[in-house]
Amino acid sequence: MADKKVYMDYNATTPLREEVRDAMVRDLEIYGNASSMHSSGRLARSRIEEARSSLGALLGAPPGDLVFGSGGTELNNTVFHTMRRLASEQRPPFQGRSEIITTAIEHPCVLNSAEYSRNQGLKVHLLPVDSAGKIDMEVYRRTLSDKTLFVSVMAANNEIGTIQNMKEITALAKEAGALVHSDGVQAVGKIPINVEDLGLDYLTMSAHKIYGPKGIGALYVKKGAPLYPLLEGGHQEKGLRAGTYNTLGILGLGKAAELALSCLGEYQERTGALKAYLREGLLERIPNITINGHQEDCLPNTLNVSFPGAEGESILLSMDMAGIEVSTGSACASGSLDPSHVLMAIGAGPSLAHGSIRFSLGWYSTREDADYVLEQLPPIISRLRAMSTLGE
Amino acid sequence: MADKKVYMDYNATTPLREEVRDAMVRDLEIYGNASSMHSSGRLARSRIEEARSSLGALLGAPPGDLVFGSGGTELNNTVFHTMRRLASEQRPPFQGRSEIITTAIEHPCVLNSAEYSRNQGLKVHLLPVDSAGKIDMEVYRRTLSDKTLFVSVMAANNEIGTIQNMKEITALAKEAGALVHSDGVQAVGKIPINVEDLGLDYLTMSAHKIYGPKGIGALYVKKGAPLYPLLEGGHQEKGLRAGTYNTLGILGLGKAAELALSCLGEYQERTGALKAYLREGLLERIPNITINGHQEDCLPNTLNVSFPGAEGESILLSMDMAGIEVSTGSACASGSLDPSHVLMAIGAGPSLAHGSIRFSLGWYSTREDADYVLEQLPPIISRLRAMSTLGE
Repeated sequence: MADKKVYMDYNATTPLREEVRDAMVRDLEIYGNASSMHSSGRLARSRIEEARSSLGALLGAPPGDLVFGSGGTELNNTVFHTMRRLASEQRPPFQGRSEIITTAIEHPCVLNSAEYSRNQGLKVHLLPVDSAGKIDMEVYRRTLSDKTLFVSVMAANNEIGTIQNMKEITALAKEAGALVHSDGVQAVGKIPINVEDLGLDYLTMSAHKIYGPKGIGALYVKKGAPLYPLLEGGHQEKGLRAGTYNTLGILGLGKAAELALSCLGEYQERTGALKAYLREGLLERIPNITINGHQEDCLPNTLNVSFPGAEGESILLSMDMAGIEVSTGSACASGSLDPSHVLMAIGAGPSLAHGSIRFSLGWYSTREDADYVLEQLPPIISRLRAMSTLGE
Repeated sequence: MADKKVYMDYNATTPLREEVRDAMVRDLEIYGNASSMHSSGRLARSRIEEARSSLGALLGAPPGDLVFGSGGTELNNTVFHTMRRLASEQRPPFQGRSEIITTAIEHPCVLNSAEYSRNQGLKVHLLPVDSAGKIDMEVYRRTLSDKTLFVSVMAANNEIGTIQNMKEITALAKEAGALVHSDGVQAVGKIPINVEDLGLDYLTMSAHKIYGPKGIGALYVKKGAPLYPLLEGGHQEKGLRAGTYNTLGILGLGKAAELALSCLGEYQERTGALKAYLREGLLERIPNITINGHQEDCLPNTLNVSFPGAEGESILLSMDMAGIEVSTGSACASGSLDPSHVLMAIGAGPSLAHGSIRFSLGWYSTREDADYVLEQLPPIISRLRAMSTLGE
């Protein structure tokens, strides 16, 4: 194995920011149950409320509209659970509404929640996207109706980085009287996201994508928007999410949110410049490659590249041998031999979809990292293309 | 406020054991997504599997039968979710079975899951308990039938510490062809729990009750027992629990499990002796008090005492002013003005149930702590009894 280590898989997860780690080391001492009435409990609770305020500032949300949970998957599931309950109850103002609109390029937890909803009798529409990963707005307009209960669109895609026009998507949903959710797990901390400005009813975020700990995330629920708890139990989070408060996780999330807000401009500049450098370098050094995703409306840190004639998993393993860590797509989908559903949805075809690598840069990525990739990758691709029957 | 600080609320939550804290400080550096194929991902994954083995050793379970999740509430909910799915599917060997048997003294997350199941059309039996908190086995036998799908009984009660005869309960359920679950959140780490020996299909545990971190727990699922994921999403945990692995939480859980196993004898001896000392001291110094729960079959660390004529919340707040932290019951139920459902179930009556305090001792409790309580509490009770209209 190489001594060198270059991590370019920040969309899968991030290391803790040093400031977050230092805060968490201190906060390992905070042990009270935040539901307890005594001093240790009240201390934990007041620290949690500070973290909620930090997150509210990042998202443009009143802190009281945020619900903590174990992460993006749980909280996206909670929103879909709520929609199934609403559809089965048919109470005002949602009578006659039992259709869900989402997209073909959502995260597996949304796609599988949508599929489960379909099995429970709801009608689910998966919107197609264009070759850059943008929702087809004409199809969207035609799909919306007075039967639409709910629209769920990810703010930015985890694999190709394409950013949707959430403000327009939300406005159209609202015109149709539907509730709107956005999976903001990849967008939050990378681009400005203001829930009130976007007009969302629900937004999901996860701490471990913004240099905070794993196992904790939050859901914005607009005041007045319905929410049914997925977890039954104690009174925590105003009865919306039972279970002992994960104090350390929440405090880490709060610190990460604070840093994400104060560093957003610098983050965008640094990762954006480095991505441009890496992209140009790859285009110069490796023939016949394709950059996937939208040219402008793309996360600053995300670069998805197809290397036709070389197989993605082989590229990944060869790069790993050289100390470079990237991915072929979502970590949640790894272990599956299917080509990326996102690349298939943008029309890449199985061969391109199987030969793609996602570089996702982050706070600790350097020019030296990019140079090392630009030095190591071209011979890997040449070798794999020479070996591959796909390359014949 | 007092300078002195005595924490006697270990059943609500525990501080980290020093060894767990030190391990977690080191493991804050482990950041890979355990689903990623590259080295950082594989490192996280292999550390997680080590933690799974440590937990397996504590529970007497094959590590492959353990599923990590965000804690007791989520995992108890997952088991009830599975039962609702089984009841609605009516597939072999569970046809004709749609009744759930549980007890009146379960944790709110089980009681509320049971209530939700009732709303979904399942028949739910809440078994009564005797004045010591033991299930009435005659009623249990009569309630079991070929309609019973599922039995869920907590191994030890969080408020009064009463330990059930799980082996007998399980054997009877098995004879009736039912699935059996035990909420082991309070029992694990305090008394020996061996899932195979007990014959359980499911057991829930939570890290933060055994000196590990909050926000992480595990569910034992016997090989062959059905489990439907509550969270839809990625392939994690063999498809049984989606969501990015909470690596730090799992590693903290593993370390806590390792210590719980190696220290169980010493833990029982130390907390048991200290509880006896505290109990005798209270009985000597404060007239007219009642010890709730079973005399022998009781968690070694748990002492629930009723102080008739004084109101529990007032006692708690006065003790907190003196730096002593205890609780009136479950932290998950705090904020509610209802008397403890556990104390009501053992027949304490509202007045006794409203005047009870749970002392729960732990690894860091000392004789000095107990002496401080024995010094501070008698005048508090005298004063409150003198003030109280209940005391007239």
